[in-house]
Amino acid sequence: MLLINGTIVTMDDEKNIYSPGALLIKEGKIADVGEEKTLKEMYPREPMRDLEGKIVMPGLINAHTHTPMVLFRGLADDLPLDTWLQDYIWPMENKMIDPDFIRRGGLLGILEMIASGTTAFNDMYFFQDVLAGAVKESGMRALLGQGLIDFPTPEAKTPQEGIAKLTALAEKWEEDDQVRISICAHAPYTCSSELLKKAYHLSEKHHLPFHIHVAETRKEADLIKEKKKEESIVEYLDRLGVLDSHVVAAHCVWISEKDMDIFHHRKVKIAHNPTSNLKLGSGTAPLHLMQKHGLTVSLGTDGAASNNSLDLFREIRLAALLSKGLQQDPELIPAYQALEMATINGARALGMDDITGSLEIGKFADFIVIDTSAPAMRPLYHPVSHLAYTAGRENVEEVYTSGKLLYRKGEYFTLDAEKILAEAETAAERIRKESRV
Amino acid sequence: MLLINGTIVTMDDEKNIYSPGALLIKEGKIADVGEEKTLKEMYPREPMRDLEGKIVMPGLINAHTHTPMVLFRGLADDLPLDTWLQDYIWPMENKMIDPDFIRRGGLLGILEMIASGTTAFNDMYFFQDVLAGAVKESGMRALLGQGLIDFPTPEAKTPQEGIAKLTALAEKWEEDDQVRISICAHAPYTCSSELLKKAYHLSEKHHLPFHIHVAETRKEADLIKEKKKEESIVEYLDRLGVLDSHVVAAHCVWISEKDMDIFHHRKVKIAHNPTSNLKLGSGTAPLHLMQKHGLTVSLGTDGAASNNSLDLFREIRLAALLSKGLQQDPELIPAYQALEMATINGARALGMDDITGSLEIGKFADFIVIDTSAPAMRPLYHPVSHLAYTAGRENVEEVYTSGKLLYRKGEYFTLDAEKILAEAETAAERIRKESRV
Repeated sequence: MLLINGTIVTMDDEKNIYSPGALLIKEGKIADVGEEKTLKEMYPREPMRDLEGKIVMPGLINAHTHTPMVLFRGLADDLPLDTWLQDYIWPMENKMIDPDFIRRGGLLGILEMIASGTTAFNDMYFFQDVLAGAVKESGMRALLGQGLIDFPTPEAKTPQEGIAKLTALAEKWEEDDQVRISICAHAPYTCSSELLKKAYHLSEKHHLPFHIHVAETRKEADLIKEKKKEESIVEYLDRLGVLDSHVVAAHCVWISEKDMDIFHHRKVKIAHNPTSNLKLGSGTAPLHLMQKHGLTVSLGTDGAASNNSLDLFREIRLAALLSKGLQQDPELIPAYQALEMATINGARALGMDDITGSLEIGKFADFIVIDTSAPAMRPLYHPVSHLAYTAGRENVEEVYTSGKLLYRKGEYFTLDAEKILAEAETAAERIRKESRV
Repeated sequence: MLLINGTIVTMDDEKNIYSPGALLIKEGKIADVGEEKTLKEMYPREPMRDLEGKIVMPGLINAHTHTPMVLFRGLADDLPLDTWLQDYIWPMENKMIDPDFIRRGGLLGILEMIASGTTAFNDMYFFQDVLAGAVKESGMRALLGQGLIDFPTPEAKTPQEGIAKLTALAEKWEEDDQVRISICAHAPYTCSSELLKKAYHLSEKHHLPFHIHVAETRKEADLIKEKKKEESIVEYLDRLGVLDSHVVAAHCVWISEKDMDIFHHRKVKIAHNPTSNLKLGSGTAPLHLMQKHGLTVSLGTDGAASNNSLDLFREIRLAALLSKGLQQDPELIPAYQALEMATINGARALGMDDITGSLEIGKFADFIVIDTSAPAMRPLYHPVSHLAYTAGRENVEEVYTSGKLLYRKGEYFTLDAEKILAEAETAAERIRKESRV
């Protein structure tokens, strides 16, 4: 049993914030949460761990990333998307991607995510069984999906081979609380309609989430429109019958209000990636309209090759700021809404809102402790304002999943950071040689 | 003498980056800079302080802020601009602003700026003589301007009184290398044309920079257009004869390419404040066009009441990202350009490019050391990419002005952080009471 006090930002449906509040943890789960005074009276024999002045909130949830790509961080920037992909990312992926790369990059990305307060993530990449091992070791949670695509990948020579691997993977991790598997189709413009349907039916059969890139660039939206006789990407996917509440659609920069109605009707979850969309010149997703249409919008960093970080605090802040400026309306996307995107909505996108994403009785104790003592965090009038606009990854002091300490003030408790950094450096050396950077 | 090695990002006109490089500091100034090997040979008897693997770059320069407003950080967010100003900021300023508030808020803001790698700033607020004392104590540099405005302020009952105070202040700090004074007119919509001209002539007479808010909101631009018979704000200021190379125009969200031509012709410096403009719903300044027109654009945080931080790394990143996404062109505002805005262009805006803003022989040794060992900074292929897209204030390890250490890993060497934080908290208590937060 662990009883802690502090400012408890629960992110529950009633938007409860207990200040001073307390959180009781028992066998890795939240046994109680509420006002400090009440909990002290209810559990008089529990020693209280004093976090007064600090903020305790749910761990952040990264709803769209390609974790091992941290090894390509900053390798190539400020380039047209085609050049970036065709001259840098794809050739390097072809040369580099193997299970060893996934392990090294995956662990490095996990170190970064933990230190910036992320406790769960939604990944789409290759050799996910290897990443699953890294996730288990770290103590984090993740939804891991392998990309299905209509051309050979480092891992599967044919889509059929990819599907067979996915099925085996899903069965292996079926009963796990930390690692869950999703079926990924890369995107409507890289997958045939047959492959999209096959992947979707596979996800239905195994009761798995279906993770797909949707309408990231205008070019992609225009292409589908041209190919599919004026259908939008969303209309096309809906006609194929591959939209439902288990679908996580990443990006959705170029969708219309009509598309949003379809998403709302089908209960599709969106993963919004504001930094990556800006950096690649893809555009800005109409977040204020998504909110108006009542969509469940979560937040992602995308891969560190197009971000160049896995820091969700940056995405929270950017998501809260962008619509305000673009629509010239400072009331859009208030601080609390941006926090919801990175916590409970992230859990909904990962299909894990029954076990994480808010501080509620019965859920796993996945939480982070935010220090508020630095000059940059003073004074503090409203914790929610500080979490959205002021805090950064540097204010994350402690990170827990299932009540277990993963990180405190630069120190990792489940992973050997020094070894992981050294192994990542070896991989980076190879990348330097191959890319002649 | 101090000889240090590391990756030296000079931000000089030739864009020299020495890796491995070295920097020689003598009597507070940069005595030499270049390749490590060369400097080692030239100064064989100097012991080398080893910063291998770290990045040494010029201290950042915040070209537009209202430092003491950190005491209002997060007091009110997500509100329409009118409500925010009229119901929160102005009433609180009327109740709170006095020399004691300026000292407490000023010192808190200075702690935050130093820790986030800022070594010089351009301020517009009240009781600047008090802030000047804080700046001297801290070791930073600042250009301090008092706001002239057509209605009574906490400090001056009439514009005449304001002008008299400014003149005295300018004379007092005339020969100082750390504190310089600017003449500020608040904005074209709050100052009469007579006041604007008076303020400008005062700045001419005393050879001081002239700092003014220009075209921050569409409403303001429309208002001037209506009042001044279809003149834009910039055309109006040009007709008044108040534009020249000593003018720092903050914001410039709503200016046209014709206005940019005028600014280019008059050599006006712009202070771009991307976060504040988004957060208040003012819009997004056309940075890519300003760059196309060859304007000198620097970067500011604005006050922490509308940011909610004084962290320039966030502004660098946002400035580099925004135009890319808005114009759907990932080649706009490359990383190096964003860094220039926060360093050498900041120095140009403050009229201090003769003494700071780049690592060049003869300038003061105002520099910061960026640690690159954290997982979030690995691997490192291109230092400039990391400084713009990846680094945050948490990676600032050491901060120097005139070769003197101000900050290292959370510890301040010129200021008593504990005392300043306690004094700021007392002021915040009063704000809580007055605003009933």
